[in-house]
Amino acid sequence: MNTRPVNLPTADVADSLSHFHQRAPLVHCLTNDVVQSFTANVLLALGASPAMVIAPEEAAQFSALADALLINIGTLEAGRAEAMLAAIEHALPAGTPWVLDPVAVGGLTYRTGFARRLLTLRPAAIRGNASEIMALSGETSRGRGVDSRDDSLAALPAARELARRSGAIVAVTGAVDYVTDGERAWAVPGGDRLMTRVVGTGCALSAVVAAFCALDGDRLQHVASACRVMSRAGELAARQAGGPGSFIPAFLDSLYQQRAEEWV
Amino acid sequence: MNTRPVNLPTADVADSLSHFHQRAPLVHCLTNDVVQSFTANVLLALGASPAMVIAPEEAAQFSALADALLINIGTLEAGRAEAMLAAIEHALPAGTPWVLDPVAVGGLTYRTGFARRLLTLRPAAIRGNASEIMALSGETSRGRGVDSRDDSLAALPAARELARRSGAIVAVTGAVDYVTDGERAWAVPGGDRLMTRVVGTGCALSAVVAAFCALDGDRLQHVASACRVMSRAGELAARQAGGPGSFIPAFLDSLYQQRAEEWV
Amino acid sequence: MNTRPVNLPTADVADSLSHFHQRAPLVHCLTNDVVQSFTANVLLALGASPAMVIAPEEAAQFSALADALLINIGTLEAGRAEAMLAAIEHALPAGTPWVLDPVAVGGLTYRTGFARRLLTLRPAAIRGNASEIMALSGETSRGRGVDSRDDSLAALPAARELARRSGAIVAVTGAVDYVTDGERAWAVPGGDRLMTRVVGTGCALSAVVAAFCALDGDRLQHVASACRVMSRAGELAARQAGGPGSFIPAFLDSLYQQRAEEWV
Repeated sequence: MNTRPVNLPTADVADSLSHFHQRAPLVHCLTNDVVQSFTANVLLALGASPAMVIAPEEAAQFSALADALLINIGTLEAGRAEAMLAAIEHALPAGTPWVLDPVAVGGLTYRTGFARRLLTLRPAAIRGNASEIMALSGETSRGRGVDSRDDSLAALPAARELARRSGAIVAVTGAVDYVTDGERAWAVPGGDRLMTRVVGTGCALSAVVAAFCALDGDRLQHVASACRVMSRAGELAARQAGGPGSFIPAFLDSLYQQRAEEWV
Repeated sequence: MNTRPVNLPTADVADSLSHFHQRAPLVHCLTNDVVQSFTANVLLALGASPAMVIAPEEAAQFSALADALLINIGTLEAGRAEAMLAAIEHALPAGTPWVLDPVAVGGLTYRTGFARRLLTLRPAAIRGNASEIMALSGETSRGRGVDSRDDSLAALPAARELARRSGAIVAVTGAVDYVTDGERAWAVPGGDRLMTRVVGTGCALSAVVAAFCALDGDRLQHVASACRVMSRAGELAARQAGGPGSFIPAFLDSLYQQRAEEWV
Repeated sequence: MNTRPVNLPTADVADSLSHFHQRAPLVHCLTNDVVQSFTANVLLALGASPAMVIAPEEAAQFSALADALLINIGTLEAGRAEAMLAAIEHALPAGTPWVLDPVAVGGLTYRTGFARRLLTLRPAAIRGNASEIMALSGETSRGRGVDSRDDSLAALPAARELARRSGAIVAVTGAVDYVTDGERAWAVPGGDRLMTRVVGTGCALSAVVAAFCALDGDRLQHVASACRVMSRAGELAARQAGGPGSFIPAFLDSLYQQRAEEWV
């Protein structure tokens, strides 16, 4: 039976973040062209190392060396799809966890088929908004593309189903994020509406989720902590920001300044 | 007979901006790789939704769903050109207006030929600097590439001719922007020289022009208003900025804060 | 016999920067997708003009017109490699100096082979971290990818050897940068650790090195001055920054405000 989602304990965030800072994961990012720079800066601000290696032959070589692999299909093209498959194929035997961000799945035929194919390749985690998670789990959604019009809580049953079927931790994000392994579920509050006025906050979260998947221990806790670290930085940045422009540097600074001890 | 351009009335800006905020257009951007992130952030700051969908098969599917389509040839390659043609082909029967930004047309053979071909496909608007508009209309220019060395007023006759021939609203931008339908012409003052020290301000303006083309009513007014909304944000941001670095967040904040009522 | 590196005189920086501001070079950038926007903004802040022209046929045409050409292999793919070779091929007879940034060379087979091939095409300068310079000169390194774990001074012998063999000025950058023509060597101090928490500071430096290679006179001095102009901006920005987010606008502002007279 499904448990009702409760808020992730702050001690769990402290534990995951502490491990994260010790590990400083190297994250291989195959992500969309729009958010590559912001994604790299988010990972760097947190103390992780990003690497965007995209030629198919190099992606295969590098994913086996990296601590985690991100697959984001926002600007999917045939060449990038080939690199993604090569990277995943070499990540799996090397034990590199990989994370799927199914950007805009549902409305667009090509990427929806590709994302469903990826589901069979044992992702460690999946991070999407309500529309994307519902579409990926086979439910119909009202989304027209990259913006979710569905509520994240409404998508929790689809997220559980997707987690059970794929074996992945599934994070469905929105005003509140829900993170589930198919049975257990954490609620992650926080963030700010300004985050929806900056491109790439969701995509960067998926990269951070990938980085936290590199940690040993309870992956459900780590993925939920990744969501909370980002939503906390969003809250703090929004307090200082006069709009989405000043939000961006404040957000990166806040990620950089975040310490595990503050969460205990 | 051509009318002399006069300044766009502020009541027109108020009217267009008010409609824009109500509509919150979804803009399909096929733009150059350098400015994708900034373009998306500009649209988001204004309350619009950007979507960069670039695979040819998806671009065709998505342009019919979007409220407007941007075609920017700054980093044109064969694959992207194919996606652009597919997107335009499906935009036209769906009634999705599309806008051309002919980056660096004139000096470079491949893109110049491509841009001239696009001219026959009924763009709703064209936005470029003086060199680009003159080159596109067939006049010779002194430009060496992406920087305009020509004055925008000197290019107004070429802009009028281009508008008449293509049926598009043509905006030739510079220290003062001129926007024409071939007969009428608005002058749009404002902006700041710092805008020329930040990459993508012109490209982002073209995306905003595309978004304003989604509105019902007088398209000439809407395109000129798009130029004025951006030049006003540039003025306000430049007052606070110590250079192009601090200009960027201030500019996005200013776009976010702009209200139709302030223009009445 | 090799001279011990001593600090670059500030009068040399003043001289190079003064020439740079007069020339305002147009830099053709074939760089990686992650850093294109930041690279363009760095060049613009300094008063130079960036142009990212990437289609093979246009890259060939444009490199002959530009004042300098940057080749950065961070996100190398087959299509981009073709454009790079075409651009270099046309740059050489036109006298356009070109600069190599061998991102992550060493660990990855495809790019390492490509970079070694480029070495034979007479680069004007090469800019990399210790791992990259050692790998390019044939020494083994401890790097796993994009992060250098080697000290820049330890790589100076490899840099000298690489400079002698290729004919290029070689800059090996780190906490202190060393710049050599194979015999002479300048040390360039400055910068800040925050620069390692922002993506693209090294890549942007390579673009600035390319821009300074457009100047007449002592290229060793110009390349070392490029390093110093950037490290100085990094120092000044770090004093104002609360983290890597606020560092970015402060860094661009500092580049914009830098005057040759302050260096005398």
